[in-house]
Amino acid sequence: MTERILINEVGLRDGLQNQPSILSTDQKLALFHTLRAAGIRDFEATSFVSPKHVPQLADAAEFLRLLPQDRSLRYTCLIPNERGYERALAAGATGIAVVLSATEGLNQKNIGMSLVQATEVCERVVRRAKDEGLFARAYIAAAFACPFEGLTPPRVLFELLDRMRTAGADELAIADTIGAANPRQVKDVFQEAINRYDDSHVAAHFHDTRGLGTALAWTAAEAGVRRFDSSIAGLGGCPFAPGASGNVATEDLVFMFNDVGFETGIDFNALLAAVGTAATMLQAARGGHIVPWARSRPQAAE
Amino acid sequence: MTERILINEVGLRDGLQNQPSILSTDQKLALFHTLRAAGIRDFEATSFVSPKHVPQLADAAEFLRLLPQDRSLRYTCLIPNERGYERALAAGATGIAVVLSATEGLNQKNIGMSLVQATEVCERVVRRAKDEGLFARAYIAAAFACPFEGLTPPRVLFELLDRMRTAGADELAIADTIGAANPRQVKDVFQEAINRYDDSHVAAHFHDTRGLGTALAWTAAEAGVRRFDSSIAGLGGCPFAPGASGNVATEDLVFMFNDVGFETGIDFNALLAAVGTAATMLQAARGGHIVPWARSRPQAAE
Repeated sequence: MTERILINEVGLRDGLQNQPSILSTDQKLALFHTLRAAGIRDFEATSFVSPKHVPQLADAAEFLRLLPQDRSLRYTCLIPNERGYERALAAGATGIAVVLSATEGLNQKNIGMSLVQATEVCERVVRRAKDEGLFARAYIAAAFACPFEGLTPPRVLFELLDRMRTAGADELAIADTIGAANPRQVKDVFQEAINRYDDSHVAAHFHDTRGLGTALAWTAAEAGVRRFDSSIAGLGGCPFAPGASGNVATEDLVFMFNDVGFETGIDFNALLAAVGTAATMLQAARGGHIVPWARSRPQAAE
Repeated sequence: MTERILINEVGLRDGLQNQPSILSTDQKLALFHTLRAAGIRDFEATSFVSPKHVPQLADAAEFLRLLPQDRSLRYTCLIPNERGYERALAAGATGIAVVLSATEGLNQKNIGMSLVQATEVCERVVRRAKDEGLFARAYIAAAFACPFEGLTPPRVLFELLDRMRTAGADELAIADTIGAANPRQVKDVFQEAINRYDDSHVAAHFHDTRGLGTALAWTAAEAGVRRFDSSIAGLGGCPFAPGASGNVATEDLVFMFNDVGFETGIDFNALLAAVGTAATMLQAARGGHIVPWARSRPQAAE
């Protein structure tokens, strides 16, 4: 039996929020449809943060309303606080994601709250979302290391994951926000996470900052993870976390997982069209490591 | 106890043989000394192939004589046939490496011999080298896939590895010559290789063609491999194997293995000087995935 890997495309939010150019709602829809045509079904669609701070996603409500409604498609929207949650609800969101940083330093810098305050806000939003029938995902950012505080103790990480799971989060996204994790840490953390929460509730979110994106993803898959975030063309980063350049590229993960025989439901060649679309629209998209090979592909041996 | 990883730097041979510019012997010595200063002790130094076909390494005998003799340093020279072996011996070589491709197609293209002929030549050279007190390494090229014949059956691979080990090869270098392996194949093949031959006789040689270099190396390390080939700045490729661009970069492997706590004996920051040297000399060196991060490194959190 072929095992399934779920790819959650975060390019429309995590990818676009950090780009110098602001895409129009129509451009975003075009990119979405190219991704959907390749077989992607799970999207982090947008974010209800302040349009002043993240003008790239100021069209969140409009964009969300224009997305096709289909039970095979899952959309989550990033929610910074209860006001953002109200806005998402008003826009018809069916899934939300909260972001809790594992350290004092990153919460302060990111959202101006202490770790205790941020944890409480995330708990309240997750509880409300579950009470109101939404899908709820909780990120723990800087799960392995923080740009301000160094290594994150696994004990702290698991306390926060427990709190989010108890609050009702359907999915715990363990995020290497600054791409600083190594494969050994990833193995230890995800083995423990799968044991505690089951693979149906655990997702891995990696950045490719140090060129270890595919190594970390494969290590997590070996530990039992079956849900991965990635961003088309490796777009992304975090405006408030120095050094957080580039999410792991969707095309790199899809190539690798398809090649080893997992079922992603995503067509690699069709995905390259989405890389091209993103590159054309943003004039800056670098593309994943697989792209140069795919563009100059030799004649296939049989 | 810290486990040791041995890095065999193949840039001086596998890296340089494919470059449009030909480095002078002095330039090669400068690059060698920068690598040595970073802590590298194992080198594929040069190749005794036809100077007409590979003019980049036409100075093999002279270069070999100029390398420092020190028992902590290991040099191997690539040997295409018995005539090449004689030349290496005359130049004072203390270690040799033969290359046997796992498929008919690549042997024909690479050295104009059948698989049977090539196997016999490699056996004879390895036997002579061992009889005459040299270190002998045998590559099996296209160990996972061949640009002409597709997937390599593991049965064929292990027959050839057995033959080389029986002939006396100290080290079996299992080479993903065209960067086509996936982590699952790597896990299966190297687990079996470690079981059959012990990790002291097994080396992994990966190319980064599809962006999986670090993923494959980590997977092999998890399977017990402790000897890795890599090339400074990711230089390399194979002139006779279409699509074989870029060995996995030494700096990427060293960063990863140091970060997880293996003992490589190599200083990552000093290694970046060698990346710079290679880039300046060749005006084309791309550098590993870690390089952009290392160049723009944020203030380290403590």
